[in-house]
Amino acid sequence: GYARLDTDRLERTGDAEVVYGAGKTPAQVVELLRTLHANHPGHAVLATRLTAEAQELVAVELPDATVDPVGRTAVLGTPPVSSGTVAVVSAGTSDAPVAAEAATTAQVFGAGVDLITDVGVAGLHRVMGVRERLAAADCLIVVAGMEGALPSVVGGLVGVPLVAVPTSVGYGASFGGLAALLGMLNSCAPGVSVVNIDNGFGAGVFAARVARQSVPAEVKER
Amino acid sequence: GYARLDTDRLERTGDAEVVYGAGKTPAQVVELLRTLHANHPGHAVLATRLTAEAQELVAVELPDATVDPVGRTAVLGTPPVSSGTVAVVSAGTSDAPVAAEAATTAQVFGAGVDLITDVGVAGLHRVMGVRERLAAADCLIVVAGMEGALPSVVGGLVGVPLVAVPTSVGYGASFGGLAALLGMLNSCAPGVSVVNIDNGFGAGVFAARVARQSVPAEVKER
Amino acid sequence: GYARLDTDRLERTGDAEVVYGAGKTPAQVVELLRTLHANHPGHAVLATRLTAEAQELVAVELPDATVDPVGRTAVLGTPPVSSGTVAVVSAGTSDAPVAAEAATTAQVFGAGVDLITDVGVAGLHRVMGVRERLAAADCLIVVAGMEGALPSVVGGLVGVPLVAVPTSVGYGASFGGLAALLGMLNSCAPGVSVVNIDNGFGAGVFAARVARQSVPAEVKER
Amino acid sequence: GYARLDTDRLERTGDAEVVYGAGKTPAQVVELLRTLHANHPGHAVLATRLTAEAQELVAVELPDATVDPVGRTAVLGTPPVSSGTVAVVSAGTSDAPVAAEAATTAQVFGAGVDLITDVGVAGLHRVMGVRERLAAADCLIVVAGMEGALPSVVGGLVGVPLVAVPTSVGYGASFGGLAALLGMLNSCAPGVSVVNIDNGFGAGVFAARVARQSVPAEVKER
Amino acid sequence: GYARLDTDRLERTGDAEVVYGAGKTPAQVVELLRTLHANHPGHAVLATRLTAEAQELVAVELPDATVDPVGRTAVLGTPPVSSGTVAVVSAGTSDAPVAAEAATTAQVFGAGVDLITDVGVAGLHRVMGVRERLAAADCLIVVAGMEGALPSVVGGLVGVPLVAVPTSVGYGASFGGLAALLGMLNSCAPGVSVVNIDNGFGAGVFAARVARQSVPAEVKER
Amino acid sequence: GYARLDTDRLERTGDAEVVYGAGKTPAQVVELLRTLHANHPGHAVLATRLTAEAQELVAVELPDATVDPVGRTAVLGTPPVSSGTVAVVSAGTSDAPVAAEAATTAQVFGAGVDLITDVGVAGLHRVMGVRERLAAADCLIVVAGMEGALPSVVGGLVGVPLVAVPTSVGYGASFGGLAALLGMLNSCAPGVSVVNIDNGFGAGVFAARVARQSVPAEVKER
Amino acid sequence: GYARLDTDRLERTGDAEVVYGAGKTPAQVVELLRTLHANHPGHAVLATRLTAEAQELVAVELPDATVDPVGRTAVLGTPPVSSGTVAVVSAGTSDAPVAAEAATTAQVFGAGVDLITDVGVAGLHRVMGVRERLAAADCLIVVAGMEGALPSVVGGLVGVPLVAVPTSVGYGASFGGLAALLGMLNSCAPGVSVVNIDNGFGAGVFAARVARQSVPAEVKER
Amino acid sequence: GYARLDTDRLERTGDAEVVYGAGKTPAQVVELLRTLHANHPGHAVLATRLTAEAQELVAVELPDATVDPVGRTAVLGTPPVSSGTVAVVSAGTSDAPVAAEAATTAQVFGAGVDLITDVGVAGLHRVMGVRERLAAADCLIVVAGMEGALPSVVGGLVGVPLVAVPTSVGYGASFGGLAALLGMLNSCAPGVSVVNIDNGFGAGVFAARVARQSVPAEVKER
Ligand SMILES: Nc1ncnc2c1ncn2[C@@H]1O[C@H](COP(=O)(O)O)[C@@H](O)[C@H]1O
Ligand SMILES: Nc1ncnc2c1ncn2[C@@H]1O[C@H](COP(=O)(O)O)[C@@H](O)[C@H]1O
Ligand SMILES: Nc1ncnc2c1ncn2[C@@H]1O[C@H](COP(=O)(O)O)[C@@H](O)[C@H]1O
Ligand SMILES: Nc1ncnc2c1ncn2[C@@H]1O[C@H](COP(=O)(O)O)[C@@H](O)[C@H]1O
Ligand SMILES: [Mg+2]
Ligand SMILES: [Mg+2]
Ligand SMILES: [Mg+2]
Ligand SMILES: [Mg+2]
Ligand SMILES: [Mg+2]
Ligand SMILES: [Mg+2]
Ligand SMILES: [Mg+2]
Ligand SMILES: [Mg+2]
Repeated sequence: GYARLDTDRLERTGDAEVVYGAGKTPAQVVELLRTLHANHPGHAVLATRLTAEAQELVAVELPDATVDPVGRTAVLGTPPVSSGTVAVVSAGTSDAPVAAEAATTAQVFGAGVDLITDVGVAGLHRVMGVRERLAAADCLIVVAGMEGALPSVVGGLVGVPLVAVPTSVGYGASFGGLAALLGMLNSCAPGVSVVNIDNGFGAGVFAARVARQSVPAEVKER
Repeated sequence: GYARLDTDRLERTGDAEVVYGAGKTPAQVVELLRTLHANHPGHAVLATRLTAEAQELVAVELPDATVDPVGRTAVLGTPPVSSGTVAVVSAGTSDAPVAAEAATTAQVFGAGVDLITDVGVAGLHRVMGVRERLAAADCLIVVAGMEGALPSVVGGLVGVPLVAVPTSVGYGASFGGLAALLGMLNSCAPGVSVVNIDNGFGAGVFAARVARQSVPAEVKER
Repeated sequence: GYARLDTDRLERTGDAEVVYGAGKTPAQVVELLRTLHANHPGHAVLATRLTAEAQELVAVELPDATVDPVGRTAVLGTPPVSSGTVAVVSAGTSDAPVAAEAATTAQVFGAGVDLITDVGVAGLHRVMGVRERLAAADCLIVVAGMEGALPSVVGGLVGVPLVAVPTSVGYGASFGGLAALLGMLNSCAPGVSVVNIDNGFGAGVFAARVARQSVPAEVKER
Repeated sequence: GYARLDTDRLERTGDAEVVYGAGKTPAQVVELLRTLHANHPGHAVLATRLTAEAQELVAVELPDATVDPVGRTAVLGTPPVSSGTVAVVSAGTSDAPVAAEAATTAQVFGAGVDLITDVGVAGLHRVMGVRERLAAADCLIVVAGMEGALPSVVGGLVGVPLVAVPTSVGYGASFGGLAALLGMLNSCAPGVSVVNIDNGFGAGVFAARVARQSVPAEVKER
Repeated sequence: GYARLDTDRLERTGDAEVVYGAGKTPAQVVELLRTLHANHPGHAVLATRLTAEAQELVAVELPDATVDPVGRTAVLGTPPVSSGTVAVVSAGTSDAPVAAEAATTAQVFGAGVDLITDVGVAGLHRVMGVRERLAAADCLIVVAGMEGALPSVVGGLVGVPLVAVPTSVGYGASFGGLAALLGMLNSCAPGVSVVNIDNGFGAGVFAARVARQSVPAEVKER
Repeated sequence: GYARLDTDRLERTGDAEVVYGAGKTPAQVVELLRTLHANHPGHAVLATRLTAEAQELVAVELPDATVDPVGRTAVLGTPPVSSGTVAVVSAGTSDAPVAAEAATTAQVFGAGVDLITDVGVAGLHRVMGVRERLAAADCLIVVAGMEGALPSVVGGLVGVPLVAVPTSVGYGASFGGLAALLGMLNSCAPGVSVVNIDNGFGAGVFAARVARQSVPAEVKER
Repeated sequence: GYARLDTDRLERTGDAEVVYGAGKTPAQVVELLRTLHANHPGHAVLATRLTAEAQELVAVELPDATVDPVGRTAVLGTPPVSSGTVAVVSAGTSDAPVAAEAATTAQVFGAGVDLITDVGVAGLHRVMGVRERLAAADCLIVVAGMEGALPSVVGGLVGVPLVAVPTSVGYGASFGGLAALLGMLNSCAPGVSVVNIDNGFGAGVFAARVARQSVPAEVKER
Repeated sequence: GYARLDTDRLERTGDAEVVYGAGKTPAQVVELLRTLHANHPGHAVLATRLTAEAQELVAVELPDATVDPVGRTAVLGTPPVSSGTVAVVSAGTSDAPVAAEAATTAQVFGAGVDLITDVGVAGLHRVMGVRERLAAADCLIVVAGMEGALPSVVGGLVGVPLVAVPTSVGYGASFGGLAALLGMLNSCAPGVSVVNIDNGFGAGVFAARVARQSVPAEVKER
């Protein structure tokens, strides 16, 4: 076997291990997806950061898998019935791949997803126009590059738990996403937490865990 | 008036504004606490980052306030009946002030708190001995300085949403908490989100929001 | 004489030299202000970054000077009749000293000033409530610490030239204002330019130059 | 539609949205230019950061567009009658692309442009020989890589508002333009503001806004 | 001759010089290996960081050499009879090349090697399951990327001298291995020392020197 | 009790826990030393980073303790009979405190120490004059600030395992020891490992573990 | 003896060792100066970075010494007859201490000094007015803080060897002299070399060595 | 014409302008070399940083030029009769390109060159074996990557003015030459000055200026 899978993880944490595609050959990705699926027949298993070549081989070898070229993910098996809602909000068109990775991950990990794109802070009416959808979610994932200001604005509009994802979109003094990362860590809106640059996957896991354990909206006293 | 309070925040986000004590005189802190309390009579209001002088003046001028010299906070008014549980876990004795700030904030924002201290990764039996308490919480706050490895270990043991707080404890190449911050952002355990260095307050707000909206433990199907 | 003053500067650039008080003794500040005033009797001369001791000695030795303890400045002589308007906008209460330095400088350099404080992005209604005043200015100075998101929001609301001033307000991963500086340099709102951290003086000079050469509002075709 | 265009921006800020070509396919660039042009028939619309492929497709598909291979821009529609003058000054031959982007942007945003190239500080006579042209402008854009010293020299010669653009020209300890950026932020000449590394576009927008609202030269009392 | 070999090194330090393959042509690598082998006929000589092309040419030209495509090394001549044991422990599958370089180096420098892979801290049972093998070694090499937490955990389990190797595995705020490097330098487990990012070679030399001078296990009073 | 001591550590790793004095009150230091001593009556226990006040109180309250004002340490109980030799080598007079911390730690952890001071590389004859003492040791600790070049020179002279300790001695671009740290991590001498800036303690633990398990010199076949 | 003096250095390099006062007690400084003077009776010996207390004790204990409170130096013994000329040029009044340290060092190491202060680039006429004095020197030391642009301007005016000294004068994004250091390292004027931030001493040694070996001006064919 | 050549530079500084080949097409390089040569018929003119393509075109179009593929330079015209000696010393084989650029530059700028390669500090006997050649030079250029320790060792052996050139040779925490740069700036040997990473050209200009103005060796009283 190529790798020592942490097959025990599902039992410990409630979620199965995931295939991190970076640096793996297409054949390794296919093999690992197949093995995980065999170990966890009742669950959907996920692969992320797939190259175009890996996406192609997965489509050929595992015809039941759903491959998303934007988010660069593949899912094998049926995601669970969703419980709770994660709203994935992104600032610019270039942030779409990270938002897609977050959305797919949240679904595989058991949450419903509401995707809200291209609502950057330079045109505030766009984010204010979706205030109700934001307030209705159980957890927010806010994706932004450049100065990463969107989480501060969203975090000031609603009191929903908010995970911010800085992206590497930008140039010059964005330093590969560092500017957005620092901005989000220093957000003046309370209750903003942050994951690594471009880490839509991590945000998706986190938000799904929050959403799926939340009291259903119809029960909430808000 | 000294400052333009965001008195509207309670309505928008469900939580009142907080007094950030850094750079404020003791008299300003007292005045702001009093004003916030008057605006939100039914809520507990919080002040953080209080100097020793500010703590003393608050104790004298606002005898109903609860002052915590470890976490450097003051609370005026009665916290809400708690809903859900936040476990605050810290690695070393020097991380206590940040853990205390997080715990007090979580309580003021409506969650119950389980405080677990001094369970650094160099003595694993300590964290493994509290695995049940970790799994029982609705949200985890994990506080650590130096290399900030504790969230990875905890995040591998249980599947509870986890907010990591890097602290500035350390010297040399810890660079004021940067080492711990980077470590936590790169955690190999999925579902770890991070707040600013020493930001117990932000973690407390976030975790309380997650905990108080969670399905009660006796209802959860785990 | 203590220093080689650039007395020629007024002729070259239209503005007199300024006393930078950092690292100078109170006596040196007084002597330099007096010399500059003697060289430029028809102008107001400015000293910045004054210690409490220097402020006191200026007040005693130069009773005609106006000393501002918030912005830590002293002005000797009458500012010119103002021409055009600079709006100085700040995000939080802790940004007040930098905003005050910017406002005083803009006035000494010949512009009228409209001061708008405490309109941080976590409470958007505050900045949206002053949209008209922002649109009416000839140049904007936007002062913010922490994540420095305010310029992006303001820059998306109005098309007025905007100079952003990052402040060192914050802690941890704000790295002394670096987070706000990077955020502002990467602003997604077009037409935002930036000065050094805490450099209210530089922003004031720049904005005054823009404002005083602008076509008066009653003439503008907007 | 591929992206949510901020078509409302023209009304809010007086300037239309722009196509940022980085990371977009040639077809997307063409489609976005066409849509913006249809939305704003009376204005010139701009696309920046175009790859060679995108430039070619624009030339074929939109024969009315003006494509500049140096500045990597395309303009569709007629720029407004210019009002005021922006002088674009650059230090070395390698800074030409950024200077060209700035010049084209300033024109599209309504200012006249005076382009002054290759006047680096290691041969001072070159910049001193153009002093009159610098003083005659309403706003200066100063473009330089390596140590970025040119804005300090220009800013000491004339009192015109000055926007500095650091470029990524250099190697080793220039760290991709960081040295020039820091140099410009710390300029000892008052009244220098700065934009992101290689951000000719941002400087062009800013300077055009300043220039087009300036009192015409024949009216100015200087 | 292409380079001035430090042929004297064996006498001074007990170990022969090594061919560092980065930036060398395949022909240079072959020539240097041959020369070193001729100078030190009784020893195994090592080449590291070999490109695929260099590995191929070595295989063809020096058929007695052992080439490892994972660790990118070649060894010519027979390693010494091993003395003492180095355990090479790695966190993730992507760390395999660095672990292989360390293992091969330790063998060439005279130590026996026990290779333990894929025991990352997010699944603690894996590392705890090999505690006996760790305790039995004379020196540990612990290889990890991302947050680099594994050395702290291992260093808290056993008292064996431990050399940590950060790898460049990761993305975003891992900054090419910086996060792991800082984490390891700040380890809360005492007795952890660190080498450069991806420097399996340096760790292998160091650990072999420790292991081969250690009292044999059957003699140790532990 | 003030802190949760890791009293189990001695059994797991062979070495008792140590009191890290930074951020602790004198009374806490005394109490912790007393408790550790009570738990490990047969061992010497160590406290590091003691303030002058803590050193004084220890001297008064624990008269059997040995207090070292240079290394800022206190030792209570008799160190073990030493086994093997650690040579502690330092570059400049200002590096003495770190060298002393390393030496005391190595002794408490069971090694003999040979202290060699002030042999900076700018006067090579000094380090070459002690070559025999270096070669005779079982492990070397090399302490240096500024450019941190001493480990490279020593590591090229002898083949003994070498732990380098960068110190914060220097100014300007030494950035608090960063220059020395990076220099040591990039040492061209093979077999150099590194600990945190100013971490004499960590180097002492590591080197003692190596030395005490080494074959006695009279047995070694060199 | 307190320290192992490198008394041999005079013979090896032609220059005696120097007392670096940082971190030394006044008594140690006096003792070291006395010892160096005794070892090198025919030379002037130098101490740098003296605290006010050390300056006072030197003045009392060594009445023949010359103490300079601006440069914070003390010199004991008569400097050699000077040979060649070093021009020390500084940009702002705050750079005076570093310029003084450089000037005194150059004199003690055998060069004549021409001190030219306060000729910052924001007032070019000042530096152009001293062009002849610059061209007449054998080596230039150019001292500047903030953006550190002066060496580029001077290096473009004359072809004399030029050592640049960045100073820590500035705030915010000057990052303690980093901006000036990077600027100088990236100077577009050829033939500029650089020393550490605030290192007037190093520049003085270097420039004196160049100047004193230069062909006298009356002989030079220029 | 493609660029505004600083043809006046020869008169001002004694040295002609140089073609910096990075980012220029082969045709531009040829044209600029030809123009410079026409302007300065009596001098040798230099081009640096040439791509393989530019080197080829120069060889074809300017058959009188000398092209060096190691240092990536081309020289057109005869260098002046050399005056004084620059010793170019390098640490490792990978530093050869930078050393070659420095050597060629020094010759074009009028100095004789003594090239001493591969004398890294890990084998001290190599540098000590060339002590006489080092002492005989008028200026030293010391080239090293990785930890950059060679200048400290050389600077402690002889008192000749020394320019250090850090190279980008290394990996991981060398951060593209930063480690070597910082090491050299913090050298404990007095009289070391530094140029940019990989800047053999700058070091060559500087050293040639020092060497050619030095008193001939036969005259020197050493
Ligand atoms: N310890 C803390 N760390 C970060 N932010 C805080 C902290 N305490 C309060 N805040 C935030 O600071 C805001 C008040 O800032 P100010 O208006 O400057 O007093 C509050 O609304 C909180 O969002
Ligand atoms: N607060 C400030 N921040 C930055 N630069 C300043 C400030 N105040 C004055 N200056 C500049 O400092 C110069 C005077 O510096 P100095 O000669 O050192 O007193 C003035 O000409 C201004 O350009
Ligand atoms: N000088 C030191 N530098 C780094 N770590 C230390 C030092 N002294 C003690 N330690 C570590 O700090 C731990 C005690 O930390 P604490 O529980 O906060 O007192 C000990 O177990 C040692 O591993
Ligand atoms: N101001 C200074 N900056 C940098 N190095 C210095 C300075 N003054 C003296 N030195 C160096 O420090 C050495 C003495 O260091 P120490 O043995 O610690 O006193 C001298 O030989 C000089 O090389
Ligand atoms: Mg958009
Ligand atoms: Mg502890
Ligand atoms: Mg506020
Ligand atoms: Mg040029
Ligand atoms: Mg794995
Ligand atoms: Mg010394
Ligand atoms: Mg001045
Ligand atoms: Mg070699």
